[in-house]
Amino acid sequence: MSDAAPTLPNFRSDNVAPVSPEILRAIAEANRGPAAAYGDDDYSRLLNARFSELFETAVTVFPVSTGTAANALSLASCARPYGAIYCHEEAHIHTAEGGATEAFTGGAKLVAMSGRNFRIEPSSLRKALGGAAWGVRNRSQPDAVSITQASEYGTIYPLVEIAEIGAIAHDRNLSLHMDGARFANALARLGCSPADMTWRAGVDILSFGATKNGAMSADAIVVFDQDLVESLSYRLRRAGQTSSKMRFASAQLLAYVEDRLYLRLAAKANAAAARLGAGLAALPDVQLIAPVEANLVFINLPAFAINRLAASGLQFARRGQDVIRFVARFDSTEQEADEVIALVRRAIAGS
Amino acid sequence: MSDAAPTLPNFRSDNVAPVSPEILRAIAEANRGPAAAYGDDDYSRLLNARFSELFETAVTVFPVSTGTAANALSLASCARPYGAIYCHEEAHIHTAEGGATEAFTGGAKLVAMSGRNFRIEPSSLRKALGGAAWGVRNRSQPDAVSITQASEYGTIYPLVEIAEIGAIAHDRNLSLHMDGARFANALARLGCSPADMTWRAGVDILSFGATKNGAMSADAIVVFDQDLVESLSYRLRRAGQTSSKMRFASAQLLAYVEDRLYLRLAAKANAAAARLGAGLAALPDVQLIAPVEANLVFINLPAFAINRLAASGLQFARRGQDVIRFVARFDSTEQEADEVIALVRRAIAGS
Amino acid sequence: MSDAAPTLPNFRSDNVAPVSPEILRAIAEANRGPAAAYGDDDYSRLLNARFSELFETAVTVFPVSTGTAANALSLASCARPYGAIYCHEEAHIHTAEGGATEAFTGGAKLVAMSGRNFRIEPSSLRKALGGAAWGVRNRSQPDAVSITQASEYGTIYPLVEIAEIGAIAHDRNLSLHMDGARFANALARLGCSPADMTWRAGVDILSFGATKNGAMSADAIVVFDQDLVESLSYRLRRAGQTSSKMRFASAQLLAYVEDRLYLRLAAKANAAAARLGAGLAALPDVQLIAPVEANLVFINLPAFAINRLAASGLQFARRGQDVIRFVARFDSTEQEADEVIALVRRAIAGS
Amino acid sequence: MSDAAPTLPNFRSDNVAPVSPEILRAIAEANRGPAAAYGDDDYSRLLNARFSELFETAVTVFPVSTGTAANALSLASCARPYGAIYCHEEAHIHTAEGGATEAFTGGAKLVAMSGRNFRIEPSSLRKALGGAAWGVRNRSQPDAVSITQASEYGTIYPLVEIAEIGAIAHDRNLSLHMDGARFANALARLGCSPADMTWRAGVDILSFGATKNGAMSADAIVVFDQDLVESLSYRLRRAGQTSSKMRFASAQLLAYVEDRLYLRLAAKANAAAARLGAGLAALPDVQLIAPVEANLVFINLPAFAINRLAASGLQFARRGQDVIRFVARFDSTEQEADEVIALVRRAIAGS
Repeated sequence: MSDAAPTLPNFRSDNVAPVSPEILRAIAEANRGPAAAYGDDDYSRLLNARFSELFETAVTVFPVSTGTAANALSLASCARPYGAIYCHEEAHIHTAEGGATEAFTGGAKLVAMSGRNFRIEPSSLRKALGGAAWGVRNRSQPDAVSITQASEYGTIYPLVEIAEIGAIAHDRNLSLHMDGARFANALARLGCSPADMTWRAGVDILSFGATKNGAMSADAIVVFDQDLVESLSYRLRRAGQTSSKMRFASAQLLAYVEDRLYLRLAAKANAAAARLGAGLAALPDVQLIAPVEANLVFINLPAFAINRLAASGLQFARRGQDVIRFVARFDSTEQEADEVIALVRRAIAGS
Repeated sequence: MSDAAPTLPNFRSDNVAPVSPEILRAIAEANRGPAAAYGDDDYSRLLNARFSELFETAVTVFPVSTGTAANALSLASCARPYGAIYCHEEAHIHTAEGGATEAFTGGAKLVAMSGRNFRIEPSSLRKALGGAAWGVRNRSQPDAVSITQASEYGTIYPLVEIAEIGAIAHDRNLSLHMDGARFANALARLGCSPADMTWRAGVDILSFGATKNGAMSADAIVVFDQDLVESLSYRLRRAGQTSSKMRFASAQLLAYVEDRLYLRLAAKANAAAARLGAGLAALPDVQLIAPVEANLVFINLPAFAINRLAASGLQFARRGQDVIRFVARFDSTEQEADEVIALVRRAIAGS
Repeated sequence: MSDAAPTLPNFRSDNVAPVSPEILRAIAEANRGPAAAYGDDDYSRLLNARFSELFETAVTVFPVSTGTAANALSLASCARPYGAIYCHEEAHIHTAEGGATEAFTGGAKLVAMSGRNFRIEPSSLRKALGGAAWGVRNRSQPDAVSITQASEYGTIYPLVEIAEIGAIAHDRNLSLHMDGARFANALARLGCSPADMTWRAGVDILSFGATKNGAMSADAIVVFDQDLVESLSYRLRRAGQTSSKMRFASAQLLAYVEDRLYLRLAAKANAAAARLGAGLAALPDVQLIAPVEANLVFINLPAFAINRLAASGLQFARRGQDVIRFVARFDSTEQEADEVIALVRRAIAGS
Repeated sequence: MSDAAPTLPNFRSDNVAPVSPEILRAIAEANRGPAAAYGDDDYSRLLNARFSELFETAVTVFPVSTGTAANALSLASCARPYGAIYCHEEAHIHTAEGGATEAFTGGAKLVAMSGRNFRIEPSSLRKALGGAAWGVRNRSQPDAVSITQASEYGTIYPLVEIAEIGAIAHDRNLSLHMDGARFANALARLGCSPADMTWRAGVDILSFGATKNGAMSADAIVVFDQDLVESLSYRLRRAGQTSSKMRFASAQLLAYVEDRLYLRLAAKANAAAARLGAGLAALPDVQLIAPVEANLVFINLPAFAINRLAASGLQFARRGQDVIRFVARFDSTEQEADEVIALVRRAIAGS
């Protein structure tokens, strides 16, 4: 079986990607005889050590089956039921996870903030926290900040900005969570170390995405603040997020970071997106909604052109009346990017 | 890498099993280019059709990542926050899922009942429901019954008993949930059709286990009562249980039921357990705790013998001072069963 | 005992009010010998009948101990855990109830909207619902609209506007909840019937406030949509909101509506506020934040004047850098209003 | 208005009691002009001081509107969502509060234990905790023990037994909660100090009942372990349990303990129950279900006699096929007790 429209490129989402061959191979290799369940196997026990090396500090890693679970359970370990979590108004946790964070926290409140280029601005955060009703019993109490790196629109927080947000959060005893559904794409772009983009900048807990970038069914929560570990470990099991045959998730995650595979995959996706973004921006009637810094390209396009484009069979995502999104993947090619540019040009021209 | 003790058989749990080759192959085959996400792919769309054939009625199937998620979310679709769910006192949902059902239902109450051979007895259920405080505002209201087939101790409800429980439940407008973590083992033993063991006997919603019996990371919820579908579909997404690359879970489930693979795998596990059970029962100082009807063998053994057995390096599960559990898997062999019997004999004899 | 500053008027909140003599008398009269508990007493049984007359339709009334409980439990009976509730961004349920609605609904999302004069605008609501992701599994599903009458800033929805909001909500199968913490103040101002301001305009469930307007410890939920009653009745008990000696709450509520007492009390509060608002608006450097339509007066005042006013010992509420709130009560007098005006004048003048 | 059957005594429940004159007077006295809301008034500020004297240690007191709220919110401050709370199988929190504890804790599990005379036995608790799966991620983790003093059947824990339970709990870092719905009845019987029956015996948090024993609408949570205070204070507000006009609840509680009123009221109830119990026990065919140590009398009575008794118009509570309950109140008299004895004698005799 295979999905339709084989001749046209698919830029709908990074969730449509296949699994990278390296990761599929790792799964097959892990399939040797019996192995202890629920994380007591050799692969899972390696995870903490391997990720601690990668992040240059002692971390605890929990494989989970989806990014939604990673985000909501991370935040549930940081926020009290009467707590508030500050995020951008376009944050996935706020707009596209069906209320998972509210559910797993027991009803904490997401405080959504606007911010240029789809990022929280440190000054806005400082102002919001300054105006919060600390200690007032009928007001939700600030407990956490969540930023998405790369953001839902493919923009990237500079390290200095993460650090500033981290400092503001920690000044007030808030935890800083990073939704890293596209962690590798951001890291590949910034060229810094995983440590620099996370705990050194103040991140306490990370949703470490792998599925969008070549894994099959494995994301992870990476915990830097070890005080969060115990509560989280119970919450995961209770949420049905502790895999019995965990070796297969762990093997995916180990392969994903082995030899910088994750960065190589992300770099390919970023490159395709960069080419696509540049090509589209050069077209008449096209405006980029946000700078293309990772693997996402959002553009304004007249509705008639969007309709024509959709009719062509090209796979992309509509994000409003005259906004569309293209997502490049590790298996996207420059040739595919060029095809899309040509299709958009034709859709505008009406030919 | 591989887990230790290669020379001794491992009867600790069916969660230590590898993935069956057929299912691993199906995963690899599903890995062809892009495919729609979140269940819109070809594999996932086939699921409902294929399982509807299998169950001889229209069903809706939702892949999930764990049995805990399958159970708790199934029950959350049946029970109100102020509802009560009747189960056996040894039910996995009550004793070993970290309160997942309480969490996902919003605090429903599990009413645990005793019952011979680790099964709910229809007469006890009838009595319990007869004595319930229907409509009384300060009492939890009966909403669902959950039975485990095969049970946590490897015993099996006869069809007539399921049907009686189903009739009692439906008489009172309760839903009947089946925890089928070992569904295939029960079905293989009974030799009946999936329909006979479920909806024809009154089951409204089923946790369809596959992971313990050869799948990698795929269990499923099979819904017979279509009124439960809508609420469930939102709850799954909100629980982080809707896989983005769902084709890989769906491919596992399709391969699992293809050509009766699931029954063939289960039959092998059952056969090994049967041989093990018979051999152990013949030993002095050994009593079976429950009849061996599926792939689980529970025995009483003097503590000194348990300690010796553990020291031998044999993998099994301790379940109390003088109770241990052996679990046979699809990849367990008769020779392994015989090895275990010999080891137990030696542990008792002290040689 | 008595609170300090006896010589200066207290316009801090209507929660500082005493109990009206009529209501205190009713409590004393209800105190005759034993009476059935949990609402089976004569007073409580009268409630439904008496309020059904008052509202000219069959209603079910549940006494509760606070307005927060009334709001959150009303909304919990309308909204699913994965539901969304539309309200004004200044709605009390969103800003000042500690997340009660999130807690009791099991994590539903409040969608806060801006709107002129602190009221939801029908056009904004229509647009918001038009743009909602109906049926999309990772988006909160619209379940209810909540309006506050009179609003948190003392403005009042005209009947035609409630009706328009009600029509929009019902078109989409949403419930319409009214937070009537100051229901009587709104009704007194509009001069219409309770029926006109509620179910005839589409209200399905009402938080009927009494405590702010002369009762001691009794608000109520008035249910027009009888489909909401059963779930609500269980949720109330489970929330610890079903009073054992309910006769005393019911007696308060009966006295409150007897001979239009509630309207007479509210009219006095409104009159004091109107006088205060007019007097303040005439002062230099004072701007009304919202038209004074009920018993609340919000003004802009330079910070230095606010500080002076606070130093004078006058009781009012600060609502930002240069915004303060005065609340008139049933026991506020025109003379007190004049005193406040004089104090503000002096604070501005610096004398 | 008044409830029917004026000529026959009402022993149905202590919830049918009127308010004691002293407490009604205190309410009226508190009704003088404006007073700060939400607990900043003079009465509420006195509460902590007055109760700290009473309990001979620094306590924090929170008035609540019902005993259910007191219990569930107390336990929510002690138990994590994945926690377990140990209680007697007849505990009100387990059998008669509609799942309030499960709701407010976010789904903690009540572990119900049998125990002679409706009390938890220290040895059983020790055994249960010894067998708990500490630290195992799929098992609810022991967080609290809840005992009811006097118990739901009117029996009373001796001080030494509370202390033993407290020691067992604290050894394991569990909190000890006391459901004191009938605290005064127990205290009056034991003749000890409030301190002796609570924190000196290890109680960390107390549901201090007043409503059943003469108050109108005021129970309280008394916190000994000050670490529980902050979380509790937010949870109360979020639960709609923080009264705006709190002075009226506080005035009730102050009057209740003034001059040992609560003990005098309880002593009257206990005396009536003692007389009733002794008289009934002397009748043929009557067995006491439990020793009469507080204000509750449970007896076995043949069903035919129960039916006759009900037909007589006497108010009592049926608790099973052949079990009934009588509850004496502060306003019950010895004469009423004698009347009941005579009625039961007649019901048995069939005359």
